[in-house]
Amino acid sequence: MKKFMNDPADAVTDYLVGLAAAHPTTVTFDAERRIVVRTTRARAGKVGLVAGGGSGCEPLHTGFVGHGMLDAACPGEIFTSPVPKQIVAATLAADSGAGVLHVIKNFSGEVMNFGMATELLAFEGIAVDSVLVTDDVSIPQMPGTAGRRGLGATVLVEKIAGAAAERGDDLASVTAIARRVTDRARTFGVGLSSCTPPLRGKPIYDLPDGEIEFGIGISGEPGRERVAMRDAHQIADAMVSEVVTDLQPSPGAQLLVLVNGMGATPLSELYLLYGECDRLLRARGLEPVRSLVGNFVTSLDQAGAALTILELDDALTVLWDAPVRTASITWGAEA
Amino acid sequence: MKKFMNDPADAVTDYLVGLAAAHPTTVTFDAERRIVVRTTRARAGKVGLVAGGGSGCEPLHTGFVGHGMLDAACPGEIFTSPVPKQIVAATLAADSGAGVLHVIKNFSGEVMNFGMATELLAFEGIAVDSVLVTDDVSIPQMPGTAGRRGLGATVLVEKIAGAAAERGDDLASVTAIARRVTDRARTFGVGLSSCTPPLRGKPIYDLPDGEIEFGIGISGEPGRERVAMRDAHQIADAMVSEVVTDLQPSPGAQLLVLVNGMGATPLSELYLLYGECDRLLRARGLEPVRSLVGNFVTSLDQAGAALTILELDDALTVLWDAPVRTASITWGAEA
Repeated sequence: MKKFMNDPADAVTDYLVGLAAAHPTTVTFDAERRIVVRTTRARAGKVGLVAGGGSGCEPLHTGFVGHGMLDAACPGEIFTSPVPKQIVAATLAADSGAGVLHVIKNFSGEVMNFGMATELLAFEGIAVDSVLVTDDVSIPQMPGTAGRRGLGATVLVEKIAGAAAERGDDLASVTAIARRVTDRARTFGVGLSSCTPPLRGKPIYDLPDGEIEFGIGISGEPGRERVAMRDAHQIADAMVSEVVTDLQPSPGAQLLVLVNGMGATPLSELYLLYGECDRLLRARGLEPVRSLVGNFVTSLDQAGAALTILELDDALTVLWDAPVRTASITWGAEA
Repeated sequence: MKKFMNDPADAVTDYLVGLAAAHPTTVTFDAERRIVVRTTRARAGKVGLVAGGGSGCEPLHTGFVGHGMLDAACPGEIFTSPVPKQIVAATLAADSGAGVLHVIKNFSGEVMNFGMATELLAFEGIAVDSVLVTDDVSIPQMPGTAGRRGLGATVLVEKIAGAAAERGDDLASVTAIARRVTDRARTFGVGLSSCTPPLRGKPIYDLPDGEIEFGIGISGEPGRERVAMRDAHQIADAMVSEVVTDLQPSPGAQLLVLVNGMGATPLSELYLLYGECDRLLRARGLEPVRSLVGNFVTSLDQAGAALTILELDDALTVLWDAPVRTASITWGAEA
């Protein structure tokens, strides 16, 4: 294992210290409560947005705290949900009187701990609502299972609901917008390697030469199936097929297309993959009109990529385009 | 080799197609001339900025074409300078009547080909000036050698000179600003792995467990020396020491600190490293006031990172903060 790291047990804390040091006017790390909050508190009366999850998926969520996205994030240990106490602290920090929306990825621990936090918050007099992100099409929708994981769509929910909150929408409206995004977004991921958690010191599993994983998540677990390595064109074809078949967008739909790297895949490969997906989508009569290409929801040092597609409408597009200023996603009004 | 790729011979072209497809309102790929240009041409009378170099270092330079940075970029084959014809075409595309600045990294092929292009351009009636980026402190300054390579400081030159050009500065002023950046910036890089060029299909060199490379460049070559793996704190200490000893910033100087990933190092490790560098710089009485953390000047899928420090002054800080909109660096006015 070769990582820029000190004591492996401190890898998450050391990252959070560095993040806050790099962006002091954007985020502050509250080491005692283990939460990352906006340095400049949002104006009174803005709906608060809180998300949290296992660390190792950076920049999710800590890199998305700031103007136009999250008010607070609570990072757990590597690939482990934050504890309820952190979620409560983040919610209290995010509240400015108009209630707080929890963005929850559908992983059992995260769902359970956000649920416990919400029970604790019932005594605080804060209106709390939640949205459950379930965009992973690699898992069939079946009763009696934990169901689909929340993956790349989480970034889109946080950006779009964050813009709605910044605009002044009330809690019910921000929640409705967030749910609209999850309803209209799907993801399929492909792994070219395993990943190495700091305390483990070696890859989670072996992946032989010539084999890759289809249907991966964001916690270093193996995918749905192991298949033979193939061209980017063929991988993109599988990704587009999986996502579009499940999403069933309207003919001619306008799409936001996210090609998300898992952490160790260079940007040039992600753009190459974007080009393939764009072409395949257009061949199906669909129209990519917004894109996001880079490492946004990762699994430590895994090589791989995931395709997320969101079917846009005018309301969602306006919110996507709204200015945002976080450590890892930032843009202004059109230059 | 596992990459998102089709025919390895097409890896660069396929990337460029994808980049332009992802950001159609920002950049256009002129496949015939093999240049990437702004989709919306800059206003008449703006000084043009052109850069180019071997591919494999993405997002440099193609990801930095747009409002507030480059007007055109000319990508060569992997780790190979663009040919003079491309540089001429990029310069013609970038010219809007006020002359063009070439940002040249100090690699022999790049210097030679930009020189030949400038000779060809003498017949075109375009005022052309150049800045040579030489920020790599791992190579001693000695007469009779090719000298120091241009590394991470290239991004800072392109951003700051780009803002000066966008503001309306004339060619002499933009060139002077660019040279001020190169004079005040230094870089030291550390590799944790080799990298794999598409047509080679295997790593350029073997790097045994427990060993890393100090003093790397951006073309996959081995570093200045091979040393034992060590903690992030110790690596940061070496980086800061190499850079600061050479730069000799004024006591209390305000710094822009770039922690640049080489392509396969996760963002969380880069922020961890940033935290270490920030602390060490403050202990020396220096003051990081701006940061940039991420993959900006890379070597394909190499794991590693480089520290670049620029000693700021008020004029440079204003230009750094100016709005920019490219594929890979974008921000607006303060939110």
